[in-house]
Amino acid sequence: MSRWEPDARGRLERAAMDLYSERGFERTTVTEIARCAGLTERTFFRHFADKREVLFAGASTLQDLFVDTLAGVPESAAPIDAVAAALDAAAAVFQGRHEHARQRQMIIVANAELQERELIKLARLSTAIAETLRLRGVPDPAASLAAEAGIAVFKVAFERWIGGTGRPDMPQLIRESLDELKAVTAGR
Amino acid sequence: MSRWEPDARGRLERAAMDLYSERGFERTTVTEIARCAGLTERTFFRHFADKREVLFAGASTLQDLFVDTLAGVPESAAPIDAVAAALDAAAAVFQGRHEHARQRQMIIVANAELQERELIKLARLSTAIAETLRLRGVPDPAASLAAEAGIAVFKVAFERWIGGTGRPDMPQLIRESLDELKAVTAGR
Repeated sequence: MSRWEPDARGRLERAAMDLYSERGFERTTVTEIARCAGLTERTFFRHFADKREVLFAGASTLQDLFVDTLAGVPESAAPIDAVAAALDAAAAVFQGRHEHARQRQMIIVANAELQERELIKLARLSTAIAETLRLRGVPDPAASLAAEAGIAVFKVAFERWIGGTGRPDMPQLIRESLDELKAVTAGR
Repeated sequence: MSRWEPDARGRLERAAMDLYSERGFERTTVTEIARCAGLTERTFFRHFADKREVLFAGASTLQDLFVDTLAGVPESAAPIDAVAAALDAAAAVFQGRHEHARQRQMIIVANAELQERELIKLARLSTAIAETLRLRGVPDPAASLAAEAGIAVFKVAFERWIGGTGRPDMPQLIRESLDELKAVTAGR
């Protein structure tokens, strides 16, 4: 980033999100995003591979956070407790981002291609969690099932958070959803 | 179906699957599928909306089976037991279809668009299960979590089945995976 473009990435992201919300993702061009942010297309492409990337740049951060947290949990922990620790770390990322997350969700829900991309993101996250559990010595199918359980809890908590006012916050909704999953699978 | 085209649908399906396997999904045309099955393109389009539909025609059958079975379980059953009954009914559909399911899976894994479609299919199935549970009086988030748990069990069992010889069969792998999910979420 050059010193003549302070917070170029943030400005591009805000401009893109506003344009996607106002006129739809398909009908927004990179030229317009750059113009709206007072920057050049070239600067846009220094920060994002394409206009979809603006919405999914956080996916790899989230995945790294999940995997790194999982890898750092003592090996004596039960797989579900390791996954719970990773969910907790991920939940913290969403603190103070409720409006942003809501806006992003509305953009995604309005576009079939973006919805597919979101499903792929979660499927990859599940695969990465299962792989990390296997590296910790958790056998299959327990590794895959603990990963899928974690993604299920994340999805349901996220939908509750997005659909509400932001309170309870993501960390609490994650904990509640995990407790609820435990109750459900126990047949209660 | 006209009487001059016995088992047209089955012939089209087998021709399509063989062509998708041999030369890839993208490089196969409806013209070729019809020719290979000894039928016309017009007959193809009487049975399938497009070439992707050949691979996903079973999705709505599976979803109906899940929903109908769920709806028929006594309301006194715990949500997870209702979902287990639906999984059991779905598993029966795969009996004797191991080779077909393996071939289909290899076609799907080779194509990003088909993988996305498969993820969408499972996401819709989860939504339909959650909705049916809500109609049975199961509150959220229990309804969503029981549905997600069911899909997780289905996915993991299906991958184990596809990756193996067909033995143990789907009904058994579904039961094992559900038991394993219960053990995992209980922290074992």
